Amino acid sequence: MRPTPPLTAVVGALPASVPFVGPEALERALGRPFAARIGANESVFGPSPAALAAIRAAAPEAWMYGDPECRDLRTAIADLHGVGIANVVCGVGIDGLLGTVVRLFAGPGTPVVTSHGGYPTFMFHVRAAGGVLHEVPYADDREDLAGLAERARAVGARIVYVANPDNPMGTWHDAEAIRALRDALPDDTLLCLDEAYADTAPAAAIGPLDTTDGGVVRLRTFSKAHGLAGLRVGYALGAEATIAAFDRVREHFGVGRLAQAAALASLGDPGHLAATVARIAEARARIEAIAAGCGLATVPSAANFVAVDCGRDGDHARAVLAACAERGVFLRMPGVAPLDRCVRVTVGLPEHLDLLERVLPEALAAAG
Amino acid sequence: MRPTPPLTAVVGALPASVPFVGPEALERALGRPFAARIGANESVFGPSPAALAAIRAAAPEAWMYGDPECRDLRTAIADLHGVGIANVVCGVGIDGLLGTVVRLFAGPGTPVVTSHGGYPTFMFHVRAAGGVLHEVPYADDREDLAGLAERARAVGARIVYVANPDNPMGTWHDAEAIRALRDALPDDTLLCLDEAYADTAPAAAIGPLDTTDGGVVRLRTFSKAHGLAGLRVGYALGAEATIAAFDRVREHFGVGRLAQAAALASLGDPGHLAATVARIAEARARIEAIAAGCGLATVPSAANFVAVDCGRDGDHARAVLAACAERGVFLRMPGVAPLDRCVRVTVGLPEHLDLLERVLPEALAAAG
Repeated sequence: MRPTPPLTAVVGALPASVPFVGPEALERALGRPFAARIGANESVFGPSPAALAAIRAAAPEAWMYGDPECRDLRTAIADLHGVGIANVVCGVGIDGLLGTVVRLFAGPGTPVVTSHGGYPTFMFHVRAAGGVLHEVPYADDREDLAGLAERARAVGARIVYVANPDNPMGTWHDAEAIRALRDALPDDTLLCLDEAYADTAPAAAIGPLDTTDGGVVRLRTFSKAHGLAGLRVGYALGAEATIAAFDRVREHFGVGRLAQAAALASLGDPGHLAATVARIAEARARIEAIAAGCGLATVPSAANFVAVDCGRDGDHARAVLAACAERGVFLRMPGVAPLDRCVRVTVGLPEHLDLLERVLPEALAAAG
Repeated sequence: MRPTPPLTAVVGALPASVPFVGPEALERALGRPFAARIGANESVFGPSPAALAAIRAAAPEAWMYGDPECRDLRTAIADLHGVGIANVVCGVGIDGLLGTVVRLFAGPGTPVVTSHGGYPTFMFHVRAAGGVLHEVPYADDREDLAGLAERARAVGARIVYVANPDNPMGTWHDAEAIRALRDALPDDTLLCLDEAYADTAPAAAIGPLDTTDGGVVRLRTFSKAHGLAGLRVGYALGAEATIAAFDRVREHFGVGRLAQAAALASLGDPGHLAATVARIAEARARIEAIAAGCGLATVPSAANFVAVDCGRDGDHARAVLAACAERGVFLRMPGVAPLDRCVRVTVGLPEHLDLLERVLPEALAAAG
């Protein structure tokens, strides 16, 4: 019997937490699969048929590593956004890219600013790097951009993280407001702008790319509207020098060969993306109607989910969530007050939302 | 125009290097694809038909994240090795796991010991964490276990990295020698034992798992004999407390859904693995014969490649490598003297080795 050697001071001080429990673990605890997996902001509408064909065609090539430069995929992404390929770096989903961004700009003791109740995986990476999190409360269920800028200046933050549209609330800011935030930050602060839900956002929320600004990194993903969460592909957009820095620490072979092929094919099928975005909008409206039918308010959403206000506190919403899970409906919810008065319902197929419509009143009753 | 905000002191001091240039980049420079891609230690014999079927069956599920606990896959791996699932953690290939191991045990200034000319990606991760590398020369083309232990004690290393079988030379040590190395290390030193090539190694090289020893982590992969490099799945084996520490910093959703399905199916087809290992042995013998036909010695190998001694110095071997590439044969080679007198030839299909047989004498002549 020999003990584990000492962890670093940073890691040794970390709690043994994980950012998210997977629905599979909940299913194992429940003893059966969920009938409606509408909790992880995945795209139940599935990948593009072109992406499916690309996966199947590339399967026999699975013995080869993917191109570590992701050249073909980056070229297509750069064309889509009207930038150069040196403005694009691919990563193992936005989660992976967030880890890289944090390691580039934050070490032990570095101040980092985010919203209280914002994306847990970003905070997980900051803690893993030993950074010091400063959390700004949401204001009216939206990230408080002025508050974030003020706090960033006050603490000398090296990274400010904002998701627009936001997760877990689905709210958004117009591009001009994001621009004003950026302009309010000092030159030694990076704005890490998570645009995972850009595909479902109003056009006014997504500003033009400014590749002359080294202080902003914008993150996109194939995990949401593109329906490829299970293949792990995201990308960062930014100035050449900022993007080049990723090469110093990133997992060069992390984006797999099938993942690159599928993402490239998905970019080549904008019709599927547009149809998916339309179905997401329809499903959001249906979730809002189901909530209204139970007398519950919803938070206006620009993402592929809707925060349903259960009308009381976090304990109540957690009870609603648990009662939905027992009835076969997997949801998630915000982690902190006052956001945690809501449960977060990801868009689903009509049959999933039929089940939600049946289950939600029961769950509310069960929660008391 | 705004500059990139300051990188951390550790990252700011890093050179803008990458561990490996992909063959795709070389093909782009060459203007045509390689006829024989036998340089990256991939398995040209391909994945198991069961893995292919699993990929194709799982493709429509690509919209779902993979189980972050990798439960089914870890259960199968644990059964294979006769350990508990708490002794197993999956990661984004051994490359990804090495990054996690380094972040757990090494921070700025931490001494880390490896072999001079050993696996570049491990060193890349150590540098990214700010660790201080101490490199021990190979002895007779083998990692110098006594030298590594001695250096580890002398510098107070927190991690000692050993690959067994070794990459890039293909040499190996018996399990007793590895055991002696482990016993020679202090309790605050982790032995990071990279067994990427365990499937092709002699049984005597791979010791039994000791899950009571928290000071050893053993790394395995589906990228080599299993032929799934393009899906990014590896795993670490160790004591429960050591494996549990990975959860503090690892990329929980990094191992994709299709990757988990394919790896699980591949474990269920030991016949394919055995047949692949046999074909690897045949191909190694053929590479040795081709080298001998050119009057070149080879280094005995327990991996899926053979180091071919070009008989002179690194400049000469690099010229041979370049001449092979111009002739459509992708190889790699060790990075430092005296190992770099060799080129490293990965096993190939008969047609690839036919081409090598034709090209190698020309390349030697061209190199002068």
